[in-house]
Amino acid sequence: MNSERISRRVGAIAPSATLAVTAKAGALREAGERVISFGAGEPDFATPDHIVEAAAAACRDPRNHKYSGVGGLPELREAVAAKTRRDSGLEVDPGDVLITNGGKHAVYNAVAAVVDAGDEVLLPTPYWTTYPEPIALSGGVAVPVQTTAANGFRAGVEQLEAARTSRTKALVFVSPSNPTGAVYPRAEIEEIGRWAADHGVWVLTDEIYEHLTYGGAQHHSMPVVAPEVGERCIVLNGVAKTYAMTGWRVGWMTGPSDAVAAARNLQSHCTSNVCNVAQAAALAAVAGPLDAVVEMRSHFDRRRRTMHRLLSEIPGLECPEPQGAFYAYPDASGLLGRDFGGARPSTTLELADLLLERAKVAVVPGEAFGAVGGLRLSFALGDEDLREGVTRMVELLGGA
Amino acid sequence: MNSERISRRVGAIAPSATLAVTAKAGALREAGERVISFGAGEPDFATPDHIVEAAAAACRDPRNHKYSGVGGLPELREAVAAKTRRDSGLEVDPGDVLITNGGKHAVYNAVAAVVDAGDEVLLPTPYWTTYPEPIALSGGVAVPVQTTAANGFRAGVEQLEAARTSRTKALVFVSPSNPTGAVYPRAEIEEIGRWAADHGVWVLTDEIYEHLTYGGAQHHSMPVVAPEVGERCIVLNGVAKTYAMTGWRVGWMTGPSDAVAAARNLQSHCTSNVCNVAQAAALAAVAGPLDAVVEMRSHFDRRRRTMHRLLSEIPGLECPEPQGAFYAYPDASGLLGRDFGGARPSTTLELADLLLERAKVAVVPGEAFGAVGGLRLSFALGDEDLREGVTRMVELLGGA
Repeated sequence: MNSERISRRVGAIAPSATLAVTAKAGALREAGERVISFGAGEPDFATPDHIVEAAAAACRDPRNHKYSGVGGLPELREAVAAKTRRDSGLEVDPGDVLITNGGKHAVYNAVAAVVDAGDEVLLPTPYWTTYPEPIALSGGVAVPVQTTAANGFRAGVEQLEAARTSRTKALVFVSPSNPTGAVYPRAEIEEIGRWAADHGVWVLTDEIYEHLTYGGAQHHSMPVVAPEVGERCIVLNGVAKTYAMTGWRVGWMTGPSDAVAAARNLQSHCTSNVCNVAQAAALAAVAGPLDAVVEMRSHFDRRRRTMHRLLSEIPGLECPEPQGAFYAYPDASGLLGRDFGGARPSTTLELADLLLERAKVAVVPGEAFGAVGGLRLSFALGDEDLREGVTRMVELLGGA
Repeated sequence: MNSERISRRVGAIAPSATLAVTAKAGALREAGERVISFGAGEPDFATPDHIVEAAAAACRDPRNHKYSGVGGLPELREAVAAKTRRDSGLEVDPGDVLITNGGKHAVYNAVAAVVDAGDEVLLPTPYWTTYPEPIALSGGVAVPVQTTAANGFRAGVEQLEAARTSRTKALVFVSPSNPTGAVYPRAEIEEIGRWAADHGVWVLTDEIYEHLTYGGAQHHSMPVVAPEVGERCIVLNGVAKTYAMTGWRVGWMTGPSDAVAAARNLQSHCTSNVCNVAQAAALAAVAGPLDAVVEMRSHFDRRRRTMHRLLSEIPGLECPEPQGAFYAYPDASGLLGRDFGGARPSTTLELADLLLERAKVAVVPGEAFGAVGGLRLSFALGDEDLREGVTRMVELLGGA
């Protein structure tokens, strides 16, 4: 028998680490400090007007006040299928689309549908803070596959193969990557997809940053460049990053019918249909043009270059140029153990605390992503704040 | 190692049974049949205007386009605390309120926070279709405690005590009840609460139908009438039934800080914050008056009496008068094995199929609620449809 007061399984869950940084920064702000936060994982733009107006109209339609199908509004599932064809060249049956309460929920459902007790899931590291928990909750074991700035924060097939065992059930694949901003080239995605297909390994491919790539980098969808993995590939996506819609909470998963059906059955008991008004907003987004993300991308690109240039001025900080998403992920290990006005941070966790305390700058330490030595800085914030924040860092950490 | 294609755990989940009935009825309707559905678990009214307008305004506020705190908007958590004081006389710290994606999600989170592998959870039967699945997903074992029309579909302390073992972790308590319409009197709630406190058994008390009671029946909140259970009591609730807001997906749980924190951490990875616009709608609902539910209740009460009177005309069908929610739950065992125009249904599942096929009337069979011999009929539908539907049943089943 179990005499624990609350569930050990759920009691062991750490709250989302990036949220913790945002909360800390928020508390300081409320105390009157002018904090610059590089912690946010969301665009600093408002949701485009045509989406907002579609949502406001949907509020007034009584059909939206009632339950709807668990899998999502049929018109939204069809729009997601059409969008997947348009943006990725992938044919998807609308019946194999499951609309979820945001991207996190798509990850949670997909992992639950595939991972059983004892299954191992390969997880290229640094990884986004929310991947390991659903794996653990399903009784699975997350197997980190370390990547470094030297290999562009990309996992190669040799590394994945070295980590594979008879228990390997799935690989979590993310490109463009949160937290590193890495984007895998087409050939590498193809190679990984073939490797997964050869070994019967599922791939959960998170494409939420698909439209945010810079310079020559381009997004490619794994089941398109490696069709052989299709029968074991779940694509995760959502409206949050492309349309500045993080607060609306609409994501989706698509993949083989049996996995999607299992996830839909789980969702029928966990949350049932996603808020219809939010689905109507997502429909206006997905069925509409990509103008807004093109516009956002040009701002992000400018800020990316500014951030990269300024961070590169800090001796001891190695900053690869981000290729996607809206994160820079400098290697700060050269700063550890050094003296900054009497403080001597020995970990990036301590360094992040120091930056918040002395410079009132919030960054997310690598520890949040299962790695040490790195810092994640979002460049999804205003140009002036970005400049001011990095300047404060340069001042504290001793720019050239 | 596990060689199953998809997760055994999640692959074993049956889709929500009431949804299956609604889907079947919907398919017949699309085929041109005039189906009367008693399957719906939602009010047949639109969400009140002041709530709709608050939501439409919230769509246009860019703050709502962004992430918000996982636990819920502070103003909504405060309004829930104030509402709990007003309606139940229970003091709740807003910090111990977790806003969820509907009532189902509150059940899912609460079960996950409390139930570990091997834990037993007492489940008075007939039970709502969604309780057993989260218990199984947490590795727990649902232990049915059978109730019957003879005892008013209420579980007594003797029954609960007889089902208790050293592994009993929690009791799911529901009053007013879905599917039976039973309402526990204050003294019985107090007795059950004391029994649970004496034995260190958690109580998850689902109060979503709190405002829908009829005749002399009244809702009482367990932690108010049995305060000793408070440290192991989680109250589940939401806006769906009280404000005709099923499609907006906003519920909540409140309870001891450690359990709420565990559920919040789980939610930080599973779905994160609930759609802000939906939360704004819920805020307008919860902070506003109860006029709409008073109005709805008067319609439900009239329909309840009509339905009870008409169903009582069917020989062999025993229909206790519903006291709460919007469900009648007649005992149909007297009809089983009898001949209806050549068909001889031997289970309520078969009887429900017969009713749908011959009379184009959709009801949910007891099997969906872990019981046999009963039928659930919602009276949350228009008076004319209600009359027409029951009249068809009388015709098929041979009214007096």
